[in-house]
Amino acid sequence: MNLALDAMGGDIAPKNPIGGLKLALESLPLVKKFYLTGPKDVIEAELDRQQVGQRERVEIVHSTQVVEMSDSGLDAVRRKKNSSISMAVDLVKQGECQAVVSAGHTGASVAAGTLMLGRLDGVDFPGIASPMPNEHGVCYILDAGANPDATPGHLVQYAIMGSTYAQYVHGKASPVVGLMNVGEEDSKGNALAKETFPLLKLAPVNFKGNVEGHDIFETELDVIVCDGFTGNVILKSCEATAKAMFKWLKHELEATFIRKMGALMAQQAFRTVKRKGSYESYGGSPLLGVRGVVIIGHGSSSPTAIMNALRVGMEAVTHEVNPHIQNAITSHVFAHV
Amino acid sequence: MNLALDAMGGDIAPKNPIGGLKLALESLPLVKKFYLTGPKDVIEAELDRQQVGQRERVEIVHSTQVVEMSDSGLDAVRRKKNSSISMAVDLVKQGECQAVVSAGHTGASVAAGTLMLGRLDGVDFPGIASPMPNEHGVCYILDAGANPDATPGHLVQYAIMGSTYAQYVHGKASPVVGLMNVGEEDSKGNALAKETFPLLKLAPVNFKGNVEGHDIFETELDVIVCDGFTGNVILKSCEATAKAMFKWLKHELEATFIRKMGALMAQQAFRTVKRKGSYESYGGSPLLGVRGVVIIGHGSSSPTAIMNALRVGMEAVTHEVNPHIQNAITSHVFAHV
Repeated sequence: MNLALDAMGGDIAPKNPIGGLKLALESLPLVKKFYLTGPKDVIEAELDRQQVGQRERVEIVHSTQVVEMSDSGLDAVRRKKNSSISMAVDLVKQGECQAVVSAGHTGASVAAGTLMLGRLDGVDFPGIASPMPNEHGVCYILDAGANPDATPGHLVQYAIMGSTYAQYVHGKASPVVGLMNVGEEDSKGNALAKETFPLLKLAPVNFKGNVEGHDIFETELDVIVCDGFTGNVILKSCEATAKAMFKWLKHELEATFIRKMGALMAQQAFRTVKRKGSYESYGGSPLLGVRGVVIIGHGSSSPTAIMNALRVGMEAVTHEVNPHIQNAITSHVFAHV
Repeated sequence: MNLALDAMGGDIAPKNPIGGLKLALESLPLVKKFYLTGPKDVIEAELDRQQVGQRERVEIVHSTQVVEMSDSGLDAVRRKKNSSISMAVDLVKQGECQAVVSAGHTGASVAAGTLMLGRLDGVDFPGIASPMPNEHGVCYILDAGANPDATPGHLVQYAIMGSTYAQYVHGKASPVVGLMNVGEEDSKGNALAKETFPLLKLAPVNFKGNVEGHDIFETELDVIVCDGFTGNVILKSCEATAKAMFKWLKHELEATFIRKMGALMAQQAFRTVKRKGSYESYGGSPLLGVRGVVIIGHGSSSPTAIMNALRVGMEAVTHEVNPHIQNAITSHVFAHV
């Protein structure tokens, strides 16, 4: 298996992608080669600077164009065919690599995955499955930002795809699916949630019903479906809250000498919780519904996060997520013809 | 000034509403009388149990019906005219009280406020302004759940109403308004956000542009507008994250003796942050856009939260929020005729 990595993707690139590659070279021995996309000289300089070994397992695919945050995802893919993200996705399209990781422009990754690889049969719109740590393991928010104006039909497809992913990657016999809503009662919600609820009751998934914010962390759920606007806002709000709490706590803990001493004695507890709440250990979010494995990393991905994103990509390939998703979607479509 | 309080509203009623009343009798001397709605015998027993003094400032308005969480807000108001929430809102309608507080069924409070009091001229849909603590003070999420399928026009009205509220209640000369979105660039968002953006640029508010999760806590913002579905999901996700972080931290801090000692030495820091992040000190969320002052409390409101909700109600009256909102909305409507 070969993996493609957008060496220029993310807020701290190419430093962090190359740092992630360095870790992955050690931890993912099953991967034959890692293909890096980006300007050859920049990547080589960074490989040297970080003293990356096993260079025979590293291929550089030269690309020069850069996707700016102000570019629309669609424009980026149509106009910048030589960008590091487009080139990386192209490696999957050509069969050179089996999965691609980018921590760059999310919209460009979604557009490149969708337009260049195409959608699986019966999938109307791909969705990003973003892992959130919870008390029982991990819960995927799907969609986390690919499809801001999702329809009820899209959410049903997300439920099926997310459920299949949790089943094959996490070994869940009957993954539990919830519908993000503003109340637990069946009749609650906006028009989208109200229309989606009865469809999910009929869908071939273990549908638990409506869920709310606290269920993300407390309830044994594998997938929470919602439109990409809501999902993206949830992810960012949760991340912002955790960050604000730690910042305020740090400020208070530094206020007196006694508190500082106490914080020092308890510092391992803070580290454990920070790590538990960090996206770093989950690595990346699979873009489900495209003909290939595309893993989207957080913009501020650390080397560890990139390494884990590469691992997530590898797992999606080894667990044959896409063939299973195709089966599940096809069965559902046939059942309704 | 007289205030109405739904004595049966909230998860722990009538205990917490009566506890809040007891605090308010001390801290709000400008309020002449507090009207409590609910079953007379139940309220009197609780007043006795909590040894509430100044009984000459307390009036009980007997009501027997109970709004269940499974009732729709609309049905609750239409069919249960004798519920504690309907009776409390009716006291404002009759001019007996100038503001009403309920920590009960939010949908019923919104429906009672809207249907029984009516909307201000030019307001299409009332919105709940929910205060969130941030580094610069407080930021209102508007709408936080009254209007799950809001239109761009509604969001413009929310911007004007929230801005007016921040101006007169918090003394902000030029309150800053943001539009909740999935990215900072002007072109981002779902259909609602994209259509609202240009309208807010033309609206008579200090519009900062698109904002994201982290802006809730870090940026000097007075109002963030969004549809009620998104707003409600944000509030609950932030609350759930904070709760999960503290729970996980507590678990880790109890894991070893040294950590326990450290936590003990630093406990005042935890308390300060918990209090800063708690809705308790903000009390309640005004329902903006109705002909009267309606304050909606959190379902799990403590006595302190109820007391602060009563204070928020009193402030909306003394700062003449509604006449100012009516002026602002009317000027905006006239400017566009």
